[in-house]
Amino acid sequence: MRTPDPQQRESKRMALLDAASQCFAEAGFVATRTADICALAGMSAGNLFHYFASKHEVLLALVAREGEEIQQAMAPLAKAADPLAQLLAFLDHVCQLACDRHYAGLALEISALGHRDEAVARLVKANDRALRDGLEALVRAADKAGQLHTSLSAPEAANWLAALIDGMFARVAADPDFHPAQQTPVLQGLVVHLLQGR
Amino acid sequence: MRTPDPQQRESKRMALLDAASQCFAEAGFVATRTADICALAGMSAGNLFHYFASKHEVLLALVAREGEEIQQAMAPLAKAADPLAQLLAFLDHVCQLACDRHYAGLALEISALGHRDEAVARLVKANDRALRDGLEALVRAADKAGQLHTSLSAPEAANWLAALIDGMFARVAADPDFHPAQQTPVLQGLVVHLLQGR
Repeated sequence: MRTPDPQQRESKRMALLDAASQCFAEAGFVATRTADICALAGMSAGNLFHYFASKHEVLLALVAREGEEIQQAMAPLAKAADPLAQLLAFLDHVCQLACDRHYAGLALEISALGHRDEAVARLVKANDRALRDGLEALVRAADKAGQLHTSLSAPEAANWLAALIDGMFARVAADPDFHPAQQTPVLQGLVVHLLQGR
Repeated sequence: MRTPDPQQRESKRMALLDAASQCFAEAGFVATRTADICALAGMSAGNLFHYFASKHEVLLALVAREGEEIQQAMAPLAKAADPLAQLLAFLDHVCQLACDRHYAGLALEISALGHRDEAVARLVKANDRALRDGLEALVRAADKAGQLHTSLSAPEAANWLAALIDGMFARVAADPDFHPAQQTPVLQGLVVHLLQGR
C-alpha cells in the first residue's frame, strides 16, 4: 500500500465523502455499495478501505463533516455588528442550500437513518445542537443589540428558527414545485415576525 | 384457509397496519420482518400474507391509509363558518399528533423511503397534495370570508403552512426537548402573521 502525504490523503478522503453523499442521497445508505462510492470518486473498488474501515464509518464521517461545516459557518455571525441582518443573510444561504435537491435528499436520508442507528443519531443530535446553538447565539446577540421584541426565550426562538429551516427542506423533498430561492422573503418575514412581532 | 367475514377481515387488516406502523417507526422498514408485524398484531407468523402480498404492500397500504385519513379530517373544515378558526384548530390537532413520537418517526421513515421507492414516492406525493389541497381550500375559504390580508397566493400560503407542519415534525424527531403541545400558540401566531400580516 502506498502511503500518500497527509494533504493528498485528506483530499482523497474528502472526495470519497463527496461521492458517498451523492450515493446515499440517490440510492440510500442500505442500497449503496462501497464499490459505488469508489466508482463515483474515480477510485478502484476497495480503495475506500484505505481511508474508512466500513461504509458505516463513511456515513459517520459524512455526518461529522456536516457538523463542522455548520459550526464554521455560524461562529463568526453572532460577533458581527448587526446580528439580525446576519441571521437573515444566513437564512438566505440556507434557502440556497435547500435548492440543492441532492443536499436536501441527503439531509432527509441521514435523519431517517438516525432513527435506528445510535451512532448516527448522536451525531445528528450534535449537529442539530450546533445549529441551534449558532441560532441561539445570534438571537442573544440581536437581543443585546436591542433588535428584538418577542416574548419567546432565546432557546425557544432558536427552536422555531430551526423548525422553519427543517420545514423548508421537507418542502423541497415533498414538492418539486417548491423553490426555496424564491421564498426567501417569506421566510425572512416569518423570522422577523417571530423575533419582533410581539 | 378460513375466509373471515369482510368486517373481520378489514379489522385484522387494520390491526396489521397499526402493528406495521409501529415496527417501521421503531426498527425501520428494511429491518422489520413480516414475522415482527404479525407478533405485534398478536397473529401467528405468515398470517400477514392472507391480507398483503408482501411487506412492501403493507407499507403502501399504510401510506395510502394515511392519505385517506388526511382527506377525511380536512374535507369538512373549509365548509365551516369561520375557516381561519378551523385552520387554527386543525394546526392545534397537528401539534397533538406531532407529540406522538411514534407518529412523527413513522412520517420521517416514510419520507426517507419515498426517496428511493417510486411507489412510496407517488403515495407520499399524493398525501402531501391532499394536505396542501385541504390547506389551500381553507385559505381560499378564509379569503372569501374576508379573513385574509396577505400578498401570498393561496398555493404559496398552503405551501408555507405545510412547511410549518413539516418543521414541527422535524423538530420533534431532532430534539426530545421540543414539545409541540406547548408550542401551539407560537405556531398559530406564525400562521396568523403569514395570512394576515401584510
